[in-house]
Amino acid sequence: MEKIVLAYSGGLDTSYCAKYLSAEKGFEVHAVSVNTGGFTQKEIDSIEEKAYMLGVKSYVNINAISTFYNKVVKYLIFGNILKNNTYPLSVSAERIIQAIEIVTYAKKIGAKYIAHGSTGAGNDQIRFDMIFQILAPEIEIITPIRDMKLSRQTEIEFLREHGVELSWEKAQYSINKGLWGTSVGGKETLTSSDPLPESAYPSQLEEKEPRKLKLSFEKGELIAIDYVKRTPVENIEALNEIASKYAIGRDIHVGDTIIGIKGRVGFEAAAPLIIIKAHHLLEKHVLTKWQQHHKDYLSNWYGTMLHEGQYLDAVMRNIEAFLEDAQSNVSGDVMITLYPYRFSLDGIQSAHDLMNSTVAAYGEMNDGWTAEDAKGFIKILSNQNKIFNQVNNSK
Amino acid sequence: MEKIVLAYSGGLDTSYCAKYLSAEKGFEVHAVSVNTGGFTQKEIDSIEEKAYMLGVKSYVNINAISTFYNKVVKYLIFGNILKNNTYPLSVSAERIIQAIEIVTYAKKIGAKYIAHGSTGAGNDQIRFDMIFQILAPEIEIITPIRDMKLSRQTEIEFLREHGVELSWEKAQYSINKGLWGTSVGGKETLTSSDPLPESAYPSQLEEKEPRKLKLSFEKGELIAIDYVKRTPVENIEALNEIASKYAIGRDIHVGDTIIGIKGRVGFEAAAPLIIIKAHHLLEKHVLTKWQQHHKDYLSNWYGTMLHEGQYLDAVMRNIEAFLEDAQSNVSGDVMITLYPYRFSLDGIQSAHDLMNSTVAAYGEMNDGWTAEDAKGFIKILSNQNKIFNQVNNSK
Amino acid sequence: MEKIVLAYSGGLDTSYCAKYLSAEKGFEVHAVSVNTGGFTQKEIDSIEEKAYMLGVKSYVNINAISTFYNKVVKYLIFGNILKNNTYPLSVSAERIIQAIEIVTYAKKIGAKYIAHGSTGAGNDQIRFDMIFQILAPEIEIITPIRDMKLSRQTEIEFLREHGVELSWEKAQYSINKGLWGTSVGGKETLTSSDPLPESAYPSQLEEKEPRKLKLSFEKGELIAIDYVKRTPVENIEALNEIASKYAIGRDIHVGDTIIGIKGRVGFEAAAPLIIIKAHHLLEKHVLTKWQQHHKDYLSNWYGTMLHEGQYLDAVMRNIEAFLEDAQSNVSGDVMITLYPYRFSLDGIQSAHDLMNSTVAAYGEMNDGWTAEDAKGFIKILSNQNKIFNQVNNSK
Amino acid sequence: MEKIVLAYSGGLDTSYCAKYLSAEKGFEVHAVSVNTGGFTQKEIDSIEEKAYMLGVKSYVNINAISTFYNKVVKYLIFGNILKNNTYPLSVSAERIIQAIEIVTYAKKIGAKYIAHGSTGAGNDQIRFDMIFQILAPEIEIITPIRDMKLSRQTEIEFLREHGVELSWEKAQYSINKGLWGTSVGGKETLTSSDPLPESAYPSQLEEKEPRKLKLSFEKGELIAIDYVKRTPVENIEALNEIASKYAIGRDIHVGDTIIGIKGRVGFEAAAPLIIIKAHHLLEKHVLTKWQQHHKDYLSNWYGTMLHEGQYLDAVMRNIEAFLEDAQSNVSGDVMITLYPYRFSLDGIQSAHDLMNSTVAAYGEMNDGWTAEDAKGFIKILSNQNKIFNQVNNSK
Repeated sequence: MEKIVLAYSGGLDTSYCAKYLSAEKGFEVHAVSVNTGGFTQKEIDSIEEKAYMLGVKSYVNINAISTFYNKVVKYLIFGNILKNNTYPLSVSAERIIQAIEIVTYAKKIGAKYIAHGSTGAGNDQIRFDMIFQILAPEIEIITPIRDMKLSRQTEIEFLREHGVELSWEKAQYSINKGLWGTSVGGKETLTSSDPLPESAYPSQLEEKEPRKLKLSFEKGELIAIDYVKRTPVENIEALNEIASKYAIGRDIHVGDTIIGIKGRVGFEAAAPLIIIKAHHLLEKHVLTKWQQHHKDYLSNWYGTMLHEGQYLDAVMRNIEAFLEDAQSNVSGDVMITLYPYRFSLDGIQSAHDLMNSTVAAYGEMNDGWTAEDAKGFIKILSNQNKIFNQVNNSK
Repeated sequence: MEKIVLAYSGGLDTSYCAKYLSAEKGFEVHAVSVNTGGFTQKEIDSIEEKAYMLGVKSYVNINAISTFYNKVVKYLIFGNILKNNTYPLSVSAERIIQAIEIVTYAKKIGAKYIAHGSTGAGNDQIRFDMIFQILAPEIEIITPIRDMKLSRQTEIEFLREHGVELSWEKAQYSINKGLWGTSVGGKETLTSSDPLPESAYPSQLEEKEPRKLKLSFEKGELIAIDYVKRTPVENIEALNEIASKYAIGRDIHVGDTIIGIKGRVGFEAAAPLIIIKAHHLLEKHVLTKWQQHHKDYLSNWYGTMLHEGQYLDAVMRNIEAFLEDAQSNVSGDVMITLYPYRFSLDGIQSAHDLMNSTVAAYGEMNDGWTAEDAKGFIKILSNQNKIFNQVNNSK
Repeated sequence: MEKIVLAYSGGLDTSYCAKYLSAEKGFEVHAVSVNTGGFTQKEIDSIEEKAYMLGVKSYVNINAISTFYNKVVKYLIFGNILKNNTYPLSVSAERIIQAIEIVTYAKKIGAKYIAHGSTGAGNDQIRFDMIFQILAPEIEIITPIRDMKLSRQTEIEFLREHGVELSWEKAQYSINKGLWGTSVGGKETLTSSDPLPESAYPSQLEEKEPRKLKLSFEKGELIAIDYVKRTPVENIEALNEIASKYAIGRDIHVGDTIIGIKGRVGFEAAAPLIIIKAHHLLEKHVLTKWQQHHKDYLSNWYGTMLHEGQYLDAVMRNIEAFLEDAQSNVSGDVMITLYPYRFSLDGIQSAHDLMNSTVAAYGEMNDGWTAEDAKGFIKILSNQNKIFNQVNNSK
Repeated sequence: MEKIVLAYSGGLDTSYCAKYLSAEKGFEVHAVSVNTGGFTQKEIDSIEEKAYMLGVKSYVNINAISTFYNKVVKYLIFGNILKNNTYPLSVSAERIIQAIEIVTYAKKIGAKYIAHGSTGAGNDQIRFDMIFQILAPEIEIITPIRDMKLSRQTEIEFLREHGVELSWEKAQYSINKGLWGTSVGGKETLTSSDPLPESAYPSQLEEKEPRKLKLSFEKGELIAIDYVKRTPVENIEALNEIASKYAIGRDIHVGDTIIGIKGRVGFEAAAPLIIIKAHHLLEKHVLTKWQQHHKDYLSNWYGTMLHEGQYLDAVMRNIEAFLEDAQSNVSGDVMITLYPYRFSLDGIQSAHDLMNSTVAAYGEMNDGWTAEDAKGFIKILSNQNKIFNQVNNSK
């Protein structure tokens, strides 16, 4: 019997795949789910139970949270990356790590096939297939949902015929939860004109009292909240726990899919938004103008290529080398205040703050140079346009 | 008697200059203030009265609001320009137009000198001097405050000795108001760590009930609010009137001055923030991926060069040609909701919306292509990295 | 009988298509060749004769030379575009215009099908198909060679069976000639290590005496050679006539195909290389530093997107608006000398030359500013890094 | 007596400084020359002798050739950097290292002053002063030539009055020689229209027979010529020795000086041009499309900032990290042929060559994918513009 690794989520599509591939196609199905921060142990147990019920030979849940942080999230923070200036790339980023973990697992157990439940309409099929093909061109990819364009009803009936009687209510919104944010799609996001209702967001407003927090960064990583030191992953989780009660970090991302159509997706990402904005503020104080400029250029590309599934392109490693190098002084504290639905960046403290210099201080008198220096500076800075104007406009 | 044009604001520094240049230096002083949206008629009258009291030969207030909009603000909207992703360049943009108006006026009346009240510490001296030197290299620039590094006390005493008894209380914050936002500097903004208190902002929260608005854009310009058509300038003013009561658009900009030091300045800019974000959302729906990408690149540079006083560089006209051309489809309505301290972008309606296509619809089944098409696409998209991996990693 | 428009070149592949589509598939075949500068009248006559012999219903040769210049070549000059700093995009650029002309013709005669002879291996299929699909999604594309992966032998036999007895000797090199250069592929270009032999190039060294030429540009277009005014197209042809006798402009382009594999192709493009380098030199004298910088950025992208068949993306029109605007001062003469296999750029003369200023002259004493001005300039230019060093390294 | 370090070249200007500072100003003068590849031992001896004759307290020649290579030249190769697509930055790059060596020496010997002989007209004063000020803001910079705007005649007379009778014939061209090229300025380069005569170039054509060479790179560095392994510095010197006899690598650079005026300078740089072009060709074979794209962007900036004296900006270290990382596969051989005045790039051999793949081969039939795959790829690649055209143009 041929081994197949199935990327399994416990939902209807991948449940169909599990049964279809084992019962109908005669595969030895090895179901895998990859935890990038969205699963509780209870959910994992339930997924496991369901998997075996569907006839899989084995099930594993791979804990990839810290891999996810170290390989991707860290660089999204270093780069202050918000796709189209809005979206922290929550789902796009997870898919990459999930695909890598799955193909690694498939190679480890000697599977010649990988199956996943993506349709032919979206981005995920591309992220999965590309990574599988690049890292294991010898493995064949099987995608029943995409190939057969099955309706939910057909899938449910197939499962029932095979003795699987589970309730598969269609949720009003499709939710994807992970360490770096939760996406919310459906109904209004299929239009251009309507916002998601408050009730569509998994987190609801629970706290109304403003709360001040101090976020401590070391070389670009979040090492402490209010002086409590934890790992960056723990800090992200802790901050999200606190800030999601303020319903912070909600928005709708409008973007271009890899297949060239426009799409809209809601998300809530309290910790990612706060961390990125706080980290960016700290950088404004400690990086030079040109560090910020070129970092922005590369980060923007990093986000786009990650979003489009191009994580394995060698240039991504080169950009990571730049980003890592540019974080050497990004250490210090950022003071923020949480309010319902929003937060403010109040200020920073850092030994690397370029405002902390005795050479010159903003808004005060110019102690580091004289009026004559300033006039010389301006005169010479005007040279090219003065010449241009004389040559071209003075006739 | 030599004619000198003085950029006059009515404040202590330029009042000192008016008296000093006329009484001490024997100039025929022609005071000019340029209105880029910050003056009421009452303020203009008061500035005029004061100017003549200080001994100027003439005073004019040049209304440059629509010039300001047409030459600069329009392109800031086209480019969704927020310096360092935060600041709408309120003051930086005004200074450029003020300088151009002043030097044009000086040439018109045949003045051989221009005076302004900037110190040697900041950006404004550079913006003013550069534009004066480029457009009129033959005119000499006189800057008493910069040259003599005078204290307020010295200036007040000088004025008193010359019979000018006015009250010159130092405001706690230095405020600059214009069509494209109000800057607020002082005290906390001189530190890295402290936010401005609510009371420092000229506008205060007056409205608490959420309010929905529909903003209509035509080729990138704001032509109507809730279907009421007005000029773009009138719309900016009307929107600001409505939205500033929600205390929207406040933040602190941390940036690099032209002279290389870091600076921090608070601002409130309700209408600019809302218009830029609404315009940007509309663009996400109507522009291609690559239009957005290259527009972002150029806009970012446009903002930086404007900020740094390089408005007269010929490349700025070239960028404007690109931006103008890219607005041909940026027409449609943007629905927003105002809340205290924040606003939401709810959606858009546009005949140019690329989500309105029958070719393909996001999130639905792929009707425009088959599973085989998608697999072919992905296979070929993987080619380079597949080859790279085979060549470099498969040994 | 259904009308089909066949992109017809007279070669074996498209001859096969002509016969196959008419005799086997029952189409009314309308053969079209688009002249972008590579055909003589004699060649056209011969192609026409052959077409009718193969059973086409009609044949037209569309003269698109000046369309090619005005829609594409002009901007390649404005942008000094050499792909990977080497290749003037000779073929890539032609294919775009050929595709547009063909689809326009198909729509005009009401054809529901378009056929072309590209294989599935290269760039041309993508350039053709994309433009056909975008401009006429209702027209079906038929590609026998790609679909059936036919060998030359099979094609020749098929033609013979259908009574077409022509000699189809396989040329050692595949040559594509047009206004903007001639590509040469085959044998050595399929390796990474070998150069093309001299004999592979259609033009051969005939002139050995150095020859001086003066190229006159007006707003970026080549309007005269040695003071003889002609249209830009005529000038390109005339210059090519002169310079190809020097065997100038030969090289091998190594690049990334749209399908992700690396490819190598030889070319000779005497006029394109000379014009681009001469135009670039003129720009170095008349454009500001930032005009050059941003023009380079956009031009590089223009070339890449053109190469990859993305000519119809709206951003291309926006970039053209920028490029056109940036040419307003690019007028003047460029002096060059031709030598065997190379040319030198000797100098320029232009009323817009920024070296022609009385404000300042390079290499001479600084008359436009004093030593003190220079010192002030440098001091302030050093500010940020001085501060950075003090804050970060002085402990 | 106060110690002063004088950047000493042996020329008239710095000889004047040596005498003026010691005899007139009472300094203890420590003369330093920094060898970045331009000095023979004989020249150093002669400079030393002259220095002592002029009254300096000490003289040292610092051998900075390998520092120059490791800190700057290496990255210029990694980045294929030619300023304005022409100039290998020969002089600009040297000045940076010279300045760093001088200020390091001054700090080591506890000097409170540094003197150099630059005028106020050019780039060198900026490169020197900026680096001195940033690395040692406490050291005062003394520049007699700039401050007093002395003529050659005045300087010669002053020296004669102080008993220094040397012959100071003004060379027709000002020559600056170093590891990374020789600059040639004067006469024709002060015009826009005239080329340098052959005789102005230090190297003359001596070899006419074409010569093939094989250059071997490892991680981007030139490790061997024709299989003879040497250090990269030795290889540059050896290649220059061979290739300069072919009069290769001559051109005139037209660029923007840091002070905003245009300048023109001739150069000969046989080895730099060959190495950069050979290295670039190798990269075209081994880097991905996006590696090349982003590397070009950063390299272009690296060159500009180096040219403008911004070497100490922290972003330069970040860019170096990227460039270094991107060289990991840039290993292999490049075959070239030298001819009088030019060279050809014949091909490459590399284990990392992306053309060496069994997945797909250019120009052949598509074995890695089917016609259907290609059609699916193209269909989906057309999506956005197909939609755009339908939405915007089909009415």
